Amino acid sequence: MERPVRHFQEELDTMQGRLLAMGGLAEERVREAVHGLTTRDSHAIGNVLRGDEPVNRLHIEVDERCFRLLALYQPMATDLRAIVAAVKINSDLERVGDLAVNIAEAALRYVAHPPVKKLIDIPKMAEIAQTMLRDALDAYVRRDTALAHAVLNADDELDALKTQVFRDLLTYMIKDPATVEPALDLILISRHLERIGDHATNIAEDVIFMVSAQDVRHHPPAHERA
Amino acid sequence: MERPVRHFQEELDTMQGRLLAMGGLAEERVREAVHGLTTRDSHAIGNVLRGDEPVNRLHIEVDERCFRLLALYQPMATDLRAIVAAVKINSDLERVGDLAVNIAEAALRYVAHPPVKKLIDIPKMAEIAQTMLRDALDAYVRRDTALAHAVLNADDELDALKTQVFRDLLTYMIKDPATVEPALDLILISRHLERIGDHATNIAEDVIFMVSAQDVRHHPPAHERA
Repeated sequence: MERPVRHFQEELDTMQGRLLAMGGLAEERVREAVHGLTTRDSHAIGNVLRGDEPVNRLHIEVDERCFRLLALYQPMATDLRAIVAAVKINSDLERVGDLAVNIAEAALRYVAHPPVKKLIDIPKMAEIAQTMLRDALDAYVRRDTALAHAVLNADDELDALKTQVFRDLLTYMIKDPATVEPALDLILISRHLERIGDHATNIAEDVIFMVSAQDVRHHPPAHERA
Repeated sequence: MERPVRHFQEELDTMQGRLLAMGGLAEERVREAVHGLTTRDSHAIGNVLRGDEPVNRLHIEVDERCFRLLALYQPMATDLRAIVAAVKINSDLERVGDLAVNIAEAALRYVAHPPVKKLIDIPKMAEIAQTMLRDALDAYVRRDTALAHAVLNADDELDALKTQVFRDLLTYMIKDPATVEPALDLILISRHLERIGDHATNIAEDVIFMVSAQDVRHHPPAHERA
């Protein structure tokens, strides 16, 4: 029996298209939550809090499509790796959607207080995390390991900013008890953004594994081992 | 050609055994980190910080075994679902291992300060999170959806404790600036424990999906919809 190759390729493309749509949506929600925070716009923040449904629907849809692809076509080698990677990436993107909600929750509490300080590092962290996410998904679609490696490197910058935000806000909290509650929410937001970077890192690692069938997870990069 | 059924079953069992070993190890590391925190034992905490390697090795091994099972045997229906579930559970357990490290990092900072208060809720949270994790993995092995549903319910208790810990510590921080830094670390630890509960929840949802091919994620339970 001839394998229905064209159908497989079409369904694989559709699945990947939906995965990208999900990534775009999750990224958009992170952007909206952080924008709502910096502009102190509780209406925009509320939109993020209420708008989880489309990401969740896509999460289930992509999972079902991956399962169907595995069950119906029993793909081999590269295709199999691409589908297993999609299952994992799908989980990561769903968590990014959850983290957008977590950011919005903390942002809503934050804007109920007078501002602790001008927000500079947090929007910068958001920018980096979003770029990492976009690049990781681009790397998946284009099977681009160089881009995936760039994502892994960007994570250090995000970690450094998180530490800076933490130290900075700690000073405010110790000096002025009135800042404790809102500063705490900013610290939580910076942790959520860091975790978005972690999810982008996971995706990048899956891409590298998928393309090169080489497992880079838990191994230092070659130049560090040298 | 006859399918090598016995080999498949053996390899499936081995993979699942390794997944369970990984779960046991991750849980043990969470226990050790929290025990190190409550007994203020920086040596025990250091063990957790240095001991990430075995979990990471198992993570790669389970992933490879799943991939091999899919590629070699092209399993169908229930077996396929069990392997796809294992891929996801494997990711969740690896994150639990990372969270044990995060708890240990915060614990090490915490024990460098005088204690903020007697720790009661955090060990309780750790207990719940560990039980959820163990039950979720038991549910996977025994294909037990009732147990998986029990895990989903336990998550509410963990969330409630997290909120209580947060409010409680906030009071200390506002009253006494000297507690800001250590209290912050306790808040972070409670968040890490909550996330371990979230991973157990993910695993439970995957078990329910695997057994019943019904997707419970992002849907309220039937009694809430009524």
